[in-house]
Amino acid sequence: MIPASARAEAGYDAWLRYAPLPKTMLTRVASVPRTVTLLGDSLVLRSARDELVRGLSSMLASPIASTTSLPTTSAILLGTLDHVRPVVPGAPPPMDLTADGFWLRTARVRNQPVLVITGRDERGVLYGVFALLQRVARGEEVSVLNERQEPAAPVRWINHWDNLDGTIERGYAGRSIFFESGHVLDDLTRVRDYGRLLASVGINGLTVNNVNANAVVITDGFIPQLARIADVLRPWGVALSVSVDFSSPRRIGGLETFDPLDARVAAFWKDRVEALYRAIPDLGGIVLKADSEGRLGPSAYGRTHADAANVIARALAPHKGVIFYRGFVYDNLMDWRDLKNDRARAAYDNFQPLDGRFDSNAVIQIKHGPIDFQVREPASPLFGALRNTNQAIELQITQEYLGQQRHVCFLAPMWKTVLDFDMLATSTSPGTPVRDLVSGRTFNRPVGGFVGVSNVGRDTTWLGHDLAMANLYGFGRLAWNPTISAKTIATDWTTLTFGHDPQVVETITSILMDSWPAYERYTGPLGAGTLTDIIRVHYGPGIESSERNGWGQWHRANGQGIGMDRTVATGTGFTAQYIPLVGAQYESLSSTPDELLLFFHHVPYTHVLRSGKTVIQHIYDSHYQGTQDAADFVARWRRLERLIDRERYASVLAKLEYQAGHAIVWRDAINNWFLWLSGIPDASGRAGRFPGRVEAESMTRDRYTNTAVVPWETASAGQAATCASGETCSARYQYQGSAGAFDIAVQFFDEDDGASRYSLFVGDKPIDSWIADGQFGSPSPNGHTSTRRTVRSVRLSPGDELRVQVTPDGLESGALDYIEITSSP
Amino acid sequence: MIPASARAEAGYDAWLRYAPLPKTMLTRVASVPRTVTLLGDSLVLRSARDELVRGLSSMLASPIASTTSLPTTSAILLGTLDHVRPVVPGAPPPMDLTADGFWLRTARVRNQPVLVITGRDERGVLYGVFALLQRVARGEEVSVLNERQEPAAPVRWINHWDNLDGTIERGYAGRSIFFESGHVLDDLTRVRDYGRLLASVGINGLTVNNVNANAVVITDGFIPQLARIADVLRPWGVALSVSVDFSSPRRIGGLETFDPLDARVAAFWKDRVEALYRAIPDLGGIVLKADSEGRLGPSAYGRTHADAANVIARALAPHKGVIFYRGFVYDNLMDWRDLKNDRARAAYDNFQPLDGRFDSNAVIQIKHGPIDFQVREPASPLFGALRNTNQAIELQITQEYLGQQRHVCFLAPMWKTVLDFDMLATSTSPGTPVRDLVSGRTFNRPVGGFVGVSNVGRDTTWLGHDLAMANLYGFGRLAWNPTISAKTIATDWTTLTFGHDPQVVETITSILMDSWPAYERYTGPLGAGTLTDIIRVHYGPGIESSERNGWGQWHRANGQGIGMDRTVATGTGFTAQYIPLVGAQYESLSSTPDELLLFFHHVPYTHVLRSGKTVIQHIYDSHYQGTQDAADFVARWRRLERLIDRERYASVLAKLEYQAGHAIVWRDAINNWFLWLSGIPDASGRAGRFPGRVEAESMTRDRYTNTAVVPWETASAGQAATCASGETCSARYQYQGSAGAFDIAVQFFDEDDGASRYSLFVGDKPIDSWIADGQFGSPSPNGHTSTRRTVRSVRLSPGDELRVQVTPDGLESGALDYIEITSSP
Repeated sequence: MIPASARAEAGYDAWLRYAPLPKTMLTRVASVPRTVTLLGDSLVLRSARDELVRGLSSMLASPIASTTSLPTTSAILLGTLDHVRPVVPGAPPPMDLTADGFWLRTARVRNQPVLVITGRDERGVLYGVFALLQRVARGEEVSVLNERQEPAAPVRWINHWDNLDGTIERGYAGRSIFFESGHVLDDLTRVRDYGRLLASVGINGLTVNNVNANAVVITDGFIPQLARIADVLRPWGVALSVSVDFSSPRRIGGLETFDPLDARVAAFWKDRVEALYRAIPDLGGIVLKADSEGRLGPSAYGRTHADAANVIARALAPHKGVIFYRGFVYDNLMDWRDLKNDRARAAYDNFQPLDGRFDSNAVIQIKHGPIDFQVREPASPLFGALRNTNQAIELQITQEYLGQQRHVCFLAPMWKTVLDFDMLATSTSPGTPVRDLVSGRTFNRPVGGFVGVSNVGRDTTWLGHDLAMANLYGFGRLAWNPTISAKTIATDWTTLTFGHDPQVVETITSILMDSWPAYERYTGPLGAGTLTDIIRVHYGPGIESSERNGWGQWHRANGQGIGMDRTVATGTGFTAQYIPLVGAQYESLSSTPDELLLFFHHVPYTHVLRSGKTVIQHIYDSHYQGTQDAADFVARWRRLERLIDRERYASVLAKLEYQAGHAIVWRDAINNWFLWLSGIPDASGRAGRFPGRVEAESMTRDRYTNTAVVPWETASAGQAATCASGETCSARYQYQGSAGAFDIAVQFFDEDDGASRYSLFVGDKPIDSWIADGQFGSPSPNGHTSTRRTVRSVRLSPGDELRVQVTPDGLESGALDYIEITSSP
Repeated sequence: MIPASARAEAGYDAWLRYAPLPKTMLTRVASVPRTVTLLGDSLVLRSARDELVRGLSSMLASPIASTTSLPTTSAILLGTLDHVRPVVPGAPPPMDLTADGFWLRTARVRNQPVLVITGRDERGVLYGVFALLQRVARGEEVSVLNERQEPAAPVRWINHWDNLDGTIERGYAGRSIFFESGHVLDDLTRVRDYGRLLASVGINGLTVNNVNANAVVITDGFIPQLARIADVLRPWGVALSVSVDFSSPRRIGGLETFDPLDARVAAFWKDRVEALYRAIPDLGGIVLKADSEGRLGPSAYGRTHADAANVIARALAPHKGVIFYRGFVYDNLMDWRDLKNDRARAAYDNFQPLDGRFDSNAVIQIKHGPIDFQVREPASPLFGALRNTNQAIELQITQEYLGQQRHVCFLAPMWKTVLDFDMLATSTSPGTPVRDLVSGRTFNRPVGGFVGVSNVGRDTTWLGHDLAMANLYGFGRLAWNPTISAKTIATDWTTLTFGHDPQVVETITSILMDSWPAYERYTGPLGAGTLTDIIRVHYGPGIESSERNGWGQWHRANGQGIGMDRTVATGTGFTAQYIPLVGAQYESLSSTPDELLLFFHHVPYTHVLRSGKTVIQHIYDSHYQGTQDAADFVARWRRLERLIDRERYASVLAKLEYQAGHAIVWRDAINNWFLWLSGIPDASGRAGRFPGRVEAESMTRDRYTNTAVVPWETASAGQAATCASGETCSARYQYQGSAGAFDIAVQFFDEDDGASRYSLFVGDKPIDSWIADGQFGSPSPNGHTSTRRTVRSVRLSPGDELRVQVTPDGLESGALDYIEITSSP
């Protein structure tokens, strides 16, 4: 156990810090009983009681007693409905609470004030405890309570894409907390602490391994290791589940086939599922990615996805297990030249015809948009098309295309655009928002809900960035209650994570709320996609990477215009996958919202948006605006300097400064590319002009040589200066402007393959020095690795020589893009 | 000595085959005396006599006697003016013949008919011999002769870019005939035979090593080796010269400087030049590339090009040696974003201000166009700007940007566009064509002329392609007399090389004459440059390689338009480097000829050319036309099957078929790129549509995997299928069309790094098999390596399975682009 106090400032305790309440708030919680009485006993109930004792004693700075007999004094009564009802006759609990639901009630028992925390089941009690603790932590009034809460859906799961070797697919916060070298880790302390975080926001399931699954995971040799993870999660009410390889019958089953209609294959799955349940009786179920991105699936035998799902569903059914079948099935070898081809159509085309053919314990797990977690997508039309099939929405907490937890990008607002989107699937009022379709409410499906893809790792902050934790928190909150606002989530999370100072809460909440719009502005505009390198890294700009290949993330930018024509009239016909009223909105250029324009239409750069701007000017303007937003985050954060702990202040500041620099890389790459491609200048004269910028390749270079950067738009002027291994290289520039104080930015490339040492001199005087030891997913100079270092308020006089010096390390090239000299504000 | 007869069909004897004349022609030469009398004696005169005996005896199929005393019978008299004049009093030779000039005269001596071959000097006699022999070989009438010929200029040199290690910069015909492993080859037989070829067309100088010179070449250890080459060339009147490294004083001279104004540096050059002349008394001189493309030069000390040239010129002057100072000086780190920057300006900007400051034995060697041997350039304005400085034109026999001797591209028509271009440098009539400026005629310069860059290698055909030899021949003919027509050169060369059959002469001459226009059509249009990869290979398409870097070969294509604005009004001001009347023509969009439009102007794709087509439609049309031209070369050549020797027929046919296939690679790359970039469709509907083509990546693939090709436009649909080393991969396609006979083209990538085995099957039946062992300058699948193999007249029925199978070799990827099935004609 890592004590909360020691960890608080490192981010490890996230929103469960239980910081002592400020004196001004203690009065509001004075009525909270100092005794906890647990009725009944179980692993989960004991977690609930211990958490309550821990939380209250810490926040109230007061000892909390614990009993198991009915109290004679004021107390908090903990127990399931069955245990609680007999002892609080005056305030009968709602016996129709649904699974995982809870009830918080102040009452009197034996004439003593009590606070009752009860639930349909043990998990309900635990969730009630966390609800009370978070009310207290937020400093809310708790003297009179009568609050009933039930989750929106039974499924509130997390998927991990962790590999057995300890790596994480799209992992940006260290190695796996579950696996290493093909085994489950011996020390599962972090898994236990992670289970606590998940439970605190109502998450009740966790799939531990990558959907690109290793077949070994369900072998007899491995199952006992899985069981150890399940044992650690069980006290938190988090059920383990596992991703499987559909070709397992052949790979590990001794069969020559994995045909789902073959009886031997069915027997294989039955046998493996039984083995799993023997070791993990409360296993949640199985996740399956088949016939997608090279994974084998039922198409190998001409079988359907329903055949594949059902063979496993039938093995799971006797154990009440569920199979999640991923809807992320598409052809990644599509002919890009055929303007009728459209990856966005794939989920619907694959699954809608099978509606009704999946067993009742099979769930289609559908990514929120029709492509792949881009910065802006419409809701997947499949949500409105499955009426007789269970569904769940897959949301990505992992910021795969959204800054990879190096950029702050709070996702709840983005998720809300989809969850709240009315698919008009029935004519009933008040409509059929996606949140009701996936929860099963609309069509009365027995299973359904929310799946979040998470990549927590061994980094102390779990996700690599303190602010990224708002996304894990937000996912849980929305899975429990998707009707709450993103702003509420941001405010609650900030208060729990950083405390009650109004300026702190207002600043961080507003940074969170502004972060996705900012990221969208400086990356991909108007629904065109994130415009990142979609082939491999998914991080920095890589505008042409989406084009002219089979992956189907096409934006179809050419010299005249940009956008995918997905209309029925002239395009791919994708809009017909929506219910007609919805489809009609997107079919028409005039009724498609600006922010999704290029997702649905191909238009000339000179097309005038609803905003009154042309598309091309919107591209230029939004990229300058987004970059300014990112710079503002730094300025806003700086005002918190003495209001929060030094550690997290410094850690987040460094990340925001990095982000502000990388936003410039994005801005310049995209603006330069579109300026070139369209041939249409920026009406404001900014794109392509960089006052104060001095290219490395035009500085006086000692041993530095010039190198073309690929793709060209990711380096200023398309080139960098690089330094051979074993050399020390420098680039010099004689300042000719007027005397004054200046900020000097050094734009360099921090490749993965070394930790080069850079120094900046004015004359002979060193003014900054740093080690480029970042990991941005690439060993080359490009938009992933391009990094800015800024030294502020440097005095310069005409004739001063600025010099950047580098000593490369490893295979790193010590690459330098430019320096930029701007007046200090 | 390699006997002509044994070599004839391998191309080694080139245009000096001396094939026995057909009987029908023997009567025309019946009057030629069968005795040769040599007056005087020297190495060169003996060469002349021996060549005459060899040529006449072979062509006339008759023994030729040789004497040194005045004949008593009919004879051919050979000797310099001084020797001849006394013995032919009745027909006094022109005593004012200039150096290297000759006179052919039939006369009577002692009442016997004689044929006099005389010259100002021994070389003139030798040239006269070759002139007579070529007249005889062409079957021309020679019974009455009175012909005086003098060269247009004193300098008719060849430059070789051979490195001492045996490689050749831009070598496409095997390794160096001069060097290997840092030494001169022991066996210089090929150098001697090469000297004979050069002499036969009047070339009188040869620079043996790369202008990117190794300093070692003028060390005491190396000079004796150079002397061995000079010894072999001397009998053919070809003077050796050498390229030097300007930093030699520091590299090999023990000095810490190479400042041309430093007395120790001047002493170094004097010492080295004296050492050279001690070993090679008839050394022609020195060639120098300085301050260019990384070569050190006088700028290191703030000195001028004149300072650099003169320090060496003064060392050479006492020996009558000449220094050629290359005008190819430019900044390869220019900022491409500055629309005022222009590499085309460089030669003029560097040298025009120095006019008159070069010593009288220094010559500025100027590339024919202002960029670098592109498929279409205007004449360099520097030709018109040097009035008090010697100049020479540098023409490139090496087809560096022009198909690298794998494509037939006869260059005389291109050279003529420049040589005949009137620079209007004076107001005199009949003008100042470039040929008169470079020869020194216009401004009465003492030295000047023609330098051809050649890359003959150890290939039996010398240049790797039988038809490429027309360029070596043509250079010599034009250097001697630049007023003759390209058609005359083509006809003469064809007759000498392939004989007298009228269909052979007509066909090959017309292929030669059509070849440059065809190459221009399927590569770079309208003066935009060759559109090849300009960074490294200079061979296949690489359209964007020129952009966004400092090399300055920019075409500035964007979504709206293309072209370099070099006008004074709105562009780089380059047109002002021409004499005003010439500049005015290029300054105006309306008076600039279509073929140079994009060299001088940036225009929208929709700009209408003088031809009435838009620029974009011209691009599409010309690329289809050029590809058709290349296909027609194959058809035309095939009609010669029984009219020429089998060896050269087959060898040239294979090259023309390769060229026709590679022309399709060019066509598709450029049309697809511009179609994408401009967004304007081909009015004829061809660009981007490929009926009958089946992409490898959409065939049924066994072990083949899909790979993106870079740059994308060099593979059909941007991708190829590649095969891992050690595998055998195949791609299958079930034919579904109607039954019939078809040509099946397999487009694959013949990388440099292996010799993979490909096979094509129909069902189980192998119908073709080949080894991809070509060397195209790249180890990757791209526009250099993309290669077409066509099997003709294959019968196919619906349901037939076509299969391409590959077993990669070495590091080669066995890459496959597509198959294409077309009806057999």
